[in-house]
Amino acid sequence: MDRVRDQILRHLLKSCGTLWEVINFQDEDIKETIRVLEEFKEKGFIEPQGDKICLTKKGIAFAKELNIRPEMDFVCKECEGTGLIIGKEFEKALRTFKEIFKGRPKETAEFDQGVVPPENSIRRAEFVYLRGDLENKKILFLGDDDLTSIAMMLTGLPEEIRVIEVDERIVNYINKVAKEYKLNVSAELYNAINPIPDSLKGKFDVFLTDPVETVAGMRLFFSRCIEALKGKGDSGYFGVSHYESSLKKWFNIEKDLLAMNLVITDILRDFNHYLLTGERIITEGFRVVKEAPFPPKAPDYAWYRSTFFRVELIDKPHPLITEKVNWDRELYFDEDTYVALP
Amino acid sequence: MDRVRDQILRHLLKSCGTLWEVINFQDEDIKETIRVLEEFKEKGFIEPQGDKICLTKKGIAFAKELNIRPEMDFVCKECEGTGLIIGKEFEKALRTFKEIFKGRPKETAEFDQGVVPPENSIRRAEFVYLRGDLENKKILFLGDDDLTSIAMMLTGLPEEIRVIEVDERIVNYINKVAKEYKLNVSAELYNAINPIPDSLKGKFDVFLTDPVETVAGMRLFFSRCIEALKGKGDSGYFGVSHYESSLKKWFNIEKDLLAMNLVITDILRDFNHYLLTGERIITEGFRVVKEAPFPPKAPDYAWYRSTFFRVELIDKPHPLITEKVNWDRELYFDEDTYVALP
Repeated sequence: MDRVRDQILRHLLKSCGTLWEVINFQDEDIKETIRVLEEFKEKGFIEPQGDKICLTKKGIAFAKELNIRPEMDFVCKECEGTGLIIGKEFEKALRTFKEIFKGRPKETAEFDQGVVPPENSIRRAEFVYLRGDLENKKILFLGDDDLTSIAMMLTGLPEEIRVIEVDERIVNYINKVAKEYKLNVSAELYNAINPIPDSLKGKFDVFLTDPVETVAGMRLFFSRCIEALKGKGDSGYFGVSHYESSLKKWFNIEKDLLAMNLVITDILRDFNHYLLTGERIITEGFRVVKEAPFPPKAPDYAWYRSTFFRVELIDKPHPLITEKVNWDRELYFDEDTYVALP
Repeated sequence: MDRVRDQILRHLLKSCGTLWEVINFQDEDIKETIRVLEEFKEKGFIEPQGDKICLTKKGIAFAKELNIRPEMDFVCKECEGTGLIIGKEFEKALRTFKEIFKGRPKETAEFDQGVVPPENSIRRAEFVYLRGDLENKKILFLGDDDLTSIAMMLTGLPEEIRVIEVDERIVNYINKVAKEYKLNVSAELYNAINPIPDSLKGKFDVFLTDPVETVAGMRLFFSRCIEALKGKGDSGYFGVSHYESSLKKWFNIEKDLLAMNLVITDILRDFNHYLLTGERIITEGFRVVKEAPFPPKAPDYAWYRSTFFRVELIDKPHPLITEKVNWDRELYFDEDTYVALP
């Protein structure tokens, strides 16, 4: 299958694009995208123009030979392809949340953090609401650097939200905001290498998490999360990227989910857009920059994507890990990792 | 979890609804929806008004007691929640397809048929295109009563489409249309109880099917389909309803998919809307009508939904069934079946 090759060709046939845009319009991982771009460069199919990558005459001829036409765009502009508008009922929550979001502690590569824009958090709340998992529910967040817990509670619908989080700055900020705005949200310091506190076990209807992008890391995160659920019919939401997780990895993640008695009910491709922007991305030492075919400029839009999964317990939770583990950076890093540090 | 109870209550708090509308705004199966409605009826929470189901004062009080607010609607009207508009590039294909669609053989319960409106077939084509699975691809359809093969080929993008189909009327109609419109589509008579013809094995990049709603039936359909694929990276698309398949069934289907080396890459909830309309639905003897709490009127819109799955081979195809099987109606029917006949 030459799907990624053809997706890149049709995108560049339509118009030149930055590295970040090229990554957005293909379905494989970054590793494979860069491999294809490298091959195109060697064959003289692409050249840089400013910060954009363009097809050369030779590249255009190659695309024509393959009978590829310029990319067509069918994505709905109204909802950015999510199927969800920002409803008037949640507009006030969004306004307040934007203020709160401005003051958040800045993300750090130490914990592989990446935050979604406020609109994205509200859309998550909407999707969770539509599924019947927001109103009057007890919700646990394992990690919440984008403060979606606050966005959700500002809708006034959940009964209670608890956040367990490894970054003390975030814990403190959430607790400060919760007090100031009188929200039933509370956060505590927690590292997923440890079992979850007994006081949280079997207490929640729903979990949300944005796990690290390794199979073992996700196994750990999901195991911790489902120990906090009450039982059958309870649900979980999380993001997995196809940028840093090959489909082979997805396959193993899905096997794990089923082994935990979780059925996959929704997979919303590229639903989450992350603000991995600014000079930090260029200077941090990420492989996506070091291995790029031409030196990229810093991205200025929320180019990084993850796919939003919903899972539901069809029976009792069956965590695959219940003990403390002694993991270090391998929790965050594997061979597909292109936007995190070893 | 009382998710379905709460979803029905919030929907009826917003406004009275027909049986078909109530089914649309909940996430469980029809069996469970009807069980809840029956309980509401016994408790005096609901009453019929014309063909609509309404909350009684007692029902409204019960919802308030549970702290449930009237349902909010966040679904994008522009794209009907699909994230996809009908692109101008496919408008001509849609116009032509609408003409062809009018003359199609009418659906029959004998083969558990149900067709989607033409716009839905075009949206399927768009989603498949975006994934890189339409342009220059060889595509196999196992069953095609809604003629999506024709819609896809009218875009001018696939290399070739083959349809294998149990209903001779559809086979003949597709071949007639293909000849008249000079489309590289051909159909042949085939029953999924038999192995696929040797001439089709290992020849395709993509399959599409709308399988029967039983676990064994889907195992059979997917096994036949992946024998037709070339190998790793090839993909498949199909619809599964949550109306007639409990999540326990989904769980077993997903286990089967992984066992066949298929990773699930997309699950688009309720993407497909079927034209199960008209008096036929009332008189056919379906359980959804026989067991309804109040006698429903015939539905006049495409109320039946299925969720659109995309799967991809992460390695060689591994079909779970390769031999001929001797199955009869159990292929079509199990305990969750509410809109098909034993």
